[in-house]
Amino acid sequence: MQLFYCPELTKGALHLNNEESRHCIKVLRKKNGDVIHLIDGQGNFYEVKINLASQKKVGFEILKTWKEEKRPYKLHIAIAPTKNMDRFEWFLEKVTEIGIDEVTPLFCDRSERKTIKEERLNKILLSATKQSLKAKLPLLNDASSFHEFVTKTHDSHTFIAHCEDQNKESLKSMTSSNPTILIGPEGDFSPEEIRLALEHEFKPIHLGNARLRTETAGIVACHTVALQHEK
Amino acid sequence: MQLFYCPELTKGALHLNNEESRHCIKVLRKKNGDVIHLIDGQGNFYEVKINLASQKKVGFEILKTWKEEKRPYKLHIAIAPTKNMDRFEWFLEKVTEIGIDEVTPLFCDRSERKTIKEERLNKILLSATKQSLKAKLPLLNDASSFHEFVTKTHDSHTFIAHCEDQNKESLKSMTSSNPTILIGPEGDFSPEEIRLALEHEFKPIHLGNARLRTETAGIVACHTVALQHEK
Repeated sequence: MQLFYCPELTKGALHLNNEESRHCIKVLRKKNGDVIHLIDGQGNFYEVKINLASQKKVGFEILKTWKEEKRPYKLHIAIAPTKNMDRFEWFLEKVTEIGIDEVTPLFCDRSERKTIKEERLNKILLSATKQSLKAKLPLLNDASSFHEFVTKTHDSHTFIAHCEDQNKESLKSMTSSNPTILIGPEGDFSPEEIRLALEHEFKPIHLGNARLRTETAGIVACHTVALQHEK
Repeated sequence: MQLFYCPELTKGALHLNNEESRHCIKVLRKKNGDVIHLIDGQGNFYEVKINLASQKKVGFEILKTWKEEKRPYKLHIAIAPTKNMDRFEWFLEKVTEIGIDEVTPLFCDRSERKTIKEERLNKILLSATKQSLKAKLPLLNDASSFHEFVTKTHDSHTFIAHCEDQNKESLKSMTSSNPTILIGPEGDFSPEEIRLALEHEFKPIHLGNARLRTETAGIVACHTVALQHEK
């Protein structure tokens, strides 16, 4: 199933935007009367019939709509973007496939990268959402400094997956259905950052015995939570 | 810790090969008397002192040796290489980090790729092994046709993660410490392949509810097994 993205549907609009219209008509050669499938990025699927087949603006009428099955958990990962952007993009693609709600790029003391291209990252999230036949787009929050993120109030169970040799429990043994997990840069969080997080009631956790790259740790954390909630 | 690879150690040789010697002396500027760390790819670490600092052949004497901690499982994944080779390489890197013993590239009815470059894939396995500070290199078996792989005798518990709507148990609920898991190409295994695998006592399993790309399914299968055996 090919999915088109139409966030405007939540405001009642019955047409695709420029980019999706072009893809629909020019690349996939859809015609008036053809039935296609849309998502609004908010968790809804739509079966629609094209009634205006223009490359600039595809119009349609809705035939059927249904909701994506809700995941039994709500997961937020705040993670230091990797120096090599490919690795961060791969992380975004994989956690979208496995199932995630929010990602916050986190700039840490030892971060080697302090800028990101939000537009490109959102495109990757969208493409992975469509490819894995989901209707809800993960939310990419604005990048945040570690300090700002850790000291604000979170409406979730907060965890920090740091690598220092301290008393930590395995994420596997946590049973939160609403976790927020911090994943550090390649050189780990700094001792000051870890102290600050613990002061603000982030629970220290580990992700097993293996030494993992940042993006792998992010994927492994996401999959651990998904697996805990698998029916 | 920087690790050098010296498979010749298992035969008693006390020098690095050309490539590792060059990297050691030319790139990392190690000198006579410097202490470096080696792995033999078979699960052993060595602390050695350089006694010959040539770019073509680094000689050393062994100061100390120790074994990598054994994983509580032995995992073999036979997986269809993806059309886009980057994705397959990413799979190899990630499962090496998480922990795997053997990978067999599997050519299936619906495989879009029927060739691989073993030398390059072995380099990726080696690089990920060093990076994650492991001493045992995963074994990359010769590529195999699905038929050949499934019909031969396996000294392990055999599973097939196919996507057809059949009665399947979750890999999560399996407790094998010695699994061999088949992961299919993007278009899934063919019905004939699934039938053949079931006939040969491969147990059908699923990897959760999400729709995953081939390389993601491979990583998720590996992490599921690792998580089951986490202490």
